[in-house]
Amino acid sequence: MKGQYVVQQGDVCKYENFVLSGCLKTFYVDPEGQEHIVMFAIEDWWTSDLGSFINQAPADFNVQCLENSEVAQISFEDLEKLYLEIPQLERFFRIIIQKGFASSLKRIVNNFALPAKERYLKFRVQYPQIEQRVPQYMIASYLGMTKEFLSKIRSQLIDEQS
Amino acid sequence: MKGQYVVQQGDVCKYENFVLSGCLKTFYVDPEGQEHIVMFAIEDWWTSDLGSFINQAPADFNVQCLENSEVAQISFEDLEKLYLEIPQLERFFRIIIQKGFASSLKRIVNNFALPAKERYLKFRVQYPQIEQRVPQYMIASYLGMTKEFLSKIRSQLIDEQS
Repeated sequence: MKGQYVVQQGDVCKYENFVLSGCLKTFYVDPEGQEHIVMFAIEDWWTSDLGSFINQAPADFNVQCLENSEVAQISFEDLEKLYLEIPQLERFFRIIIQKGFASSLKRIVNNFALPAKERYLKFRVQYPQIEQRVPQYMIASYLGMTKEFLSKIRSQLIDEQS
Repeated sequence: MKGQYVVQQGDVCKYENFVLSGCLKTFYVDPEGQEHIVMFAIEDWWTSDLGSFINQAPADFNVQCLENSEVAQISFEDLEKLYLEIPQLERFFRIIIQKGFASSLKRIVNNFALPAKERYLKFRVQYPQIEQRVPQYMIASYLGMTKEFLSKIRSQLIDEQS
């Protein structure tokens, strides 16, 4: 259901979640109540609070459905068992996680090195589907800028195109 | 050798590097020639340009020795062979990479959500050894702030302690 939480900040993240349909966001709420979006997930993506899941420790992040979503869940215990039974699964997750890690490192540097406009353009090219499904203020949060600033960038881009 | 490059931006990163001794930095040089530090690596850490290594594509980052360093290298081809021969290696790397990915996601959010001073304090707690071995201006770059700003934070902290 739209609005439903799959993981709640402070709880232990018990499941890895594979998105069958829908769209979810992973976010941190700071002590002032402000939301900071870490990632989105759409069909065929995995989502969780990875740090919480692997350590079975309290989650830093929330994961919440932005649309009515279907999610296949696997528990920490079941996944550990499956790793032992099906060693190829280690490979499967090793490869997925490598890609995620590599892209998060690029994101860290882009956040420091790229002007906001270029960061937004990169996001649009990399995640065109998310751009269309997610409200602009959430994209602004993901990119680490205010919604007013993103709106200004979008106006500039429209002016440039016309 | 101090100053030596293990990976150069634009080249394909052919090796995963295990640090036997020494200290290295992974960084991006932007078109204006400014350096942005992605990560450091000391003894017992792995370092490379992961995105370049897994795709065997041009590297976004440089990896350079900050001290005289000994590094054990494994090539992409050899590692792929080893994965097939020793399935436990998939598990080994899956676990290491998961930890790295989880901590990089926290770092992305901290960069948005935490004031600079708290980011610096977190860094000191998390990586006390790196704090001692690496020049301050590099730590400032890793934390996404100017060296002047980090220096101001450090002065404030000293004042608070006295």
